[in-house]
Formats: sequence, C-alpha cells, structure tokens
Amino acid sequence: MAVYTEVPDGELAAFVKAYDIGEVVSCKGIAEGVENSNFLMRTTKGSYILTLYEKRVNRSDLPFFLGLMEHLAAKGLSCPTPIKARDGEALRELCGRPAAIISFLEGMWPRRPTERHCQLLGGAMADLHIKGRDFALKRPNNLSLAGWRTLVANTKDRADEVSPGLADTIQDELAFLEKNWPQDLEVGVIHADLFPDNVFFLGDRLSGLIDFYFACTDFLVYDVAICLNAWCFEQKGEFNVTKAKLMIESYAKLRPLPEAELAAMPVLARGGALRFLLTRLYDWLNHPPGAFVSPKDPLEYLKKLRFHQQAKSVAAYGL
Amino acid sequence: MAVYTEVPDGELAAFVKAYDIGEVVSCKGIAEGVENSNFLMRTTKGSYILTLYEKRVNRSDLPFFLGLMEHLAAKGLSCPTPIKARDGEALRELCGRPAAIISFLEGMWPRRPTERHCQLLGGAMADLHIKGRDFALKRPNNLSLAGWRTLVANTKDRADEVSPGLADTIQDELAFLEKNWPQDLEVGVIHADLFPDNVFFLGDRLSGLIDFYFACTDFLVYDVAICLNAWCFEQKGEFNVTKAKLMIESYAKLRPLPEAELAAMPVLARGGALRFLLTRLYDWLNHPPGAFVSPKDPLEYLKKLRFHQQAKSVAAYGL
Repeated sequence: MAVYTEVPDGELAAFVKAYDIGEVVSCKGIAEGVENSNFLMRTTKGSYILTLYEKRVNRSDLPFFLGLMEHLAAKGLSCPTPIKARDGEALRELCGRPAAIISFLEGMWPRRPTERHCQLLGGAMADLHIKGRDFALKRPNNLSLAGWRTLVANTKDRADEVSPGLADTIQDELAFLEKNWPQDLEVGVIHADLFPDNVFFLGDRLSGLIDFYFACTDFLVYDVAICLNAWCFEQKGEFNVTKAKLMIESYAKLRPLPEAELAAMPVLARGGALRFLLTRLYDWLNHPPGAFVSPKDPLEYLKKLRFHQQAKSVAAYGL
Repeated sequence: MAVYTEVPDGELAAFVKAYDIGEVVSCKGIAEGVENSNFLMRTTKGSYILTLYEKRVNRSDLPFFLGLMEHLAAKGLSCPTPIKARDGEALRELCGRPAAIISFLEGMWPRRPTERHCQLLGGAMADLHIKGRDFALKRPNNLSLAGWRTLVANTKDRADEVSPGLADTIQDELAFLEKNWPQDLEVGVIHADLFPDNVFFLGDRLSGLIDFYFACTDFLVYDVAICLNAWCFEQKGEFNVTKAKLMIESYAKLRPLPEAELAAMPVLARGGALRFLLTRLYDWLNHPPGAFVSPKDPLEYLKKLRFHQQAKSVAAYGL
C-alpha cells in the first residue's frame, strides 16, 4: 500500500508532455510496491505505470534497475520496460523525485500459489537468468552476508523481544553461513525478490515478472533458493516438496543446475530464510506503533530457516 | 488510501463470471476512497472499478447509493454506474463483503482547484440536483443536526486537547444552528461530499462526479454550502470570493436559487463547516497513534466556521 507523493494534475500533464504517449485521461495511486509511489496511468494511447522513487531506493541504483528491465524486455522476457521520453531519457524527475513511466503488464499475482504456478515460475526464472547474462551493469547484493552482518548488529539487542533465544539463533546462523557460504557458483543478474506478488499470471500462463528494485548481481541459484522460501511453504508452515521439485525441474530444463549448485541449495536456502527473517525483524522492531501497514511476521522465516537447517542435501527439495 | 480486503485471484475470476464483462486481465487496489476497498480492474472488455463495502458503510444504505448512481447515469449525468450481472443484480458478495462492479470514469481530480474548476462544479452540481429530483428512494442525512449532536457528545470531553476553548465554541455553534437551521427549502438528493477528490476533470471539461457514499436526502442548497467550504478557501485560509461567485452563479443558471435559499446560505455554510469540523475532530481524537493514514486537521474547519460566522448575508459569497 504505497502512495507517498501526491502528483498535482498540472505537474503530471506537463511531465507527460515530454513523452510520445498521448494525454493523460486518468491516474490512480495503486497499492503495489512498498518502497515507491506507484500510479496506474491511462493516456489516450494506452496504460502505463508511473513510479516515483522514494527515499528507500538509492538514486544511484536506478540506472541499473531501469537498464535491466529494458535489457530483459528487449530480449523477449515478459516484464515491464521503461518508456523513453522524446529526448531518449527514461529516468526523469517529478515532484522533486526521480520518476519513470513503465509499460503496463497484464496479469494478476496468485494469492494462493499452486503447484502449477511454481512450475511456471521455475521456467520464467531460468529465462530471466539466461537473458540477463549479457547485461553489462553490475550491482552488488547489499542484502547478502555483509548486509546481514549489519542487520544482525542492528537487531540483536531487541531480537529476543520477538522470540526468546532469537538473537542467539540468528548469531549462530550467521556464523554458520559465513563459514559455509559457497564461493564459485555462476554469478549473474538475479531478481532477488521473486515473491508471488511480483509474478503475474493470466489463466494458465505466466504473464510476466515485475518489481526489479532488489535485482542485483549474485549467484543465479540463490534466486531459486529465495523462491523455495517464498513459494514452497504452505500456510501452516509445511514445506510442499512437490512445488519445490516442479519449480527446480522446470528451471533446470532451461538452465541445467550444475552439481555444485545443487549441493549448495540447503545453505543458500538458509541464507534466503535469514535474509527475510532479518529484514522483517528489523521492520518489526522499527515500525511506528499502530502503523496502517503492519509489518510482516519475522517468525514465519524462523520456521523456514529451521526447515532448511535440517535439509541434508537437495533431496530435501524433492530432487 | 484504502485496500482493506485482499481478493484472491480465483475468487475474483469466479465473481466476474456472473457478469458479461469478459475475463479479468488485471486488478489493482487503488488508493481512493477511505471507507471501502477499491480496485481498478481491467477485463478483456474494458476498465471497471470493483468496490468491496467495508464495515463503515451501512449495508442497508447500499441500494440507495447504487440505485442513485444508476438513476443519475441513466439520465445522462456523468457519474459511475453499477454494472449488473447476468441475473440483473448489481449488489453482490465477494470475500464475505457486499461488492459491486462500477463503470470506470475517466478524468483526474484537481489538486489545486481553480476558478474555472469551481465554475464547472456549480453547473454539474445543479445538474445532479435536477436529475435526482425524480429518484424514488430516500435516505436521511445522518450527518445533519441529529448526527452533530451525537458527535458533539462524543468529542466534547477531549475537544480542548486539540485547541483550548474548542468544546465551548462547538457547543455554542450547535445551539445556534439548532435555533436557526432552515425549515422549508427544497429537499432532494444531495451528494454531501463533493470535495475536489470526488470531481474529475479532463482538460477544460468536468468529466464526472464520483463517490456517492454520503449521498442523502436534504436541502439541495446545503450541497452548495458544503462546496463553499470544500472549494473556495485557499491554502492559507483566505476565502476566494471569486470562486464562490462563479460556482453559485453557474449553479443558479441551471437551477435558480430562490430568495430563501440565498438567505440561508451563511447558516448552511456554518452547518457544513461544523459537520467537517466534527467528523475530523472525532477522527483526530480516535485514530490509532502513528497510523499510516494521518487524520485531516480539524482546525482547518474551525477557521472556515469563523469565516461563515461573520457572513451577514449571501453577499459574503460574492452574490
């Protein structure tokens, strides 16, 4: 639920004049994306997403994000692509904020992901990884080991307020991951936030991937590990091994998984669980009381972490 | 900013099957309307608003609201109209809530209303009043005198927290209005919440009126008095008499204002100011601390009330 900036109609009309997309006929703030202000804008020529980048997004990262979307869309991946103004620039300014108009993508994200959704996701993720291979820009993953260290430092004093013993569990896990994190897997562009609300479907078809604002350069298979966390656990916390198997198998059909990546899966899945445990824990401890947007439960990811801690090999994921 | 209910894609698809509007291709929660959950939905046949009525809307009022929109749209007023399902019913149920699909209206509401906007508004408001004359249903205005009495009772103990002396000012004003409220003006359907965010424009054209969820049966000219409050004060509190004059004159061109209505304008404007002062004060005193949706400043309406208290006649509004 995110509209942080109101865009006066006059400023919007002036902004859109720089583009060759017709005139605005409606513009509504939409409840999508937590970091930025997003508007569904209709013009006389079509539908678009207008995004104003708010302070949580680092301005210097925007060329990476927008360039990546453009690169992937140009290679045929179904994802939003930035619209360039008449002067060739996609990244502009509106209401004192960096702003871009992005193509509109049809589809809806699945509130209750099915096995079929997971299977389709696997293929789309591999497609993204393959099409991203020749993208020239790099962006380090600031939510990997170094970022976790900072988050641990910033949450450890109060982590036990959320669950007794949580601080120690997190410290131990970080120590384990620092020792066991893989070194030599294939690196490339990953989405890094492929949760169900960022994957659109239309009927039996995956219609596209959105929200590339956590995308970065990291182990490709770490994206798979994040999706194991985001897609394959059921409401009550049970791991659905069928979903995992279908997802990984359909991924591997397009991009075969080397032995080293398969072997690293449990460690990477632990890392993925720790990453979301830490960011949720931080938000939980630092959100204003009574806030309208309630923070997500960090303990969901403690349970997921415990599952992965018991995984001896990729067999735990159905392979 | 309002999406209180998440609609699972499967339930949405099943819901839409009852209509003859094609298949859903996207559905996004929009930040419009405070009382209900609103979604901008696109189907293979067009764009629609899907509204789920949340608990602040009285279920028994829905036939009035939906019937009114249908009546007005059928008479050519530019406003949203409920879409009927194949069985003829517009009011249905989704996710355990009353729900309706409403036609989509192009346009944007003015963040900075101009004199021209006020002029166009006057005509559209008169058009609404005229076209509403033969609407059969009635709905008493529960935010008139009786409603104010309840709000005064529920805020008086803490009103002075917001501004010293506010409780007394409000009590005195209520006593004045109870004694001086007019009796015999023309009664009919009023919108009762024609704030700028409920009036859409496209270029130099008023493209429509939305959000009829406060509509009720009351003095027609009370709508004008509400608009004096909502449209004719500038940012720093100055009353823009040109805006008022243009608005009232263009209203009166379509529906001439009888002498009694003109004479009652200052009292009605005081009532309008008190109504929004009271509801804002109540929300101010009762919102959860740190809430994401910050309540609107009640004191804005105290200043407006003071302006109207000094108005000796309709001349204060430029007539």
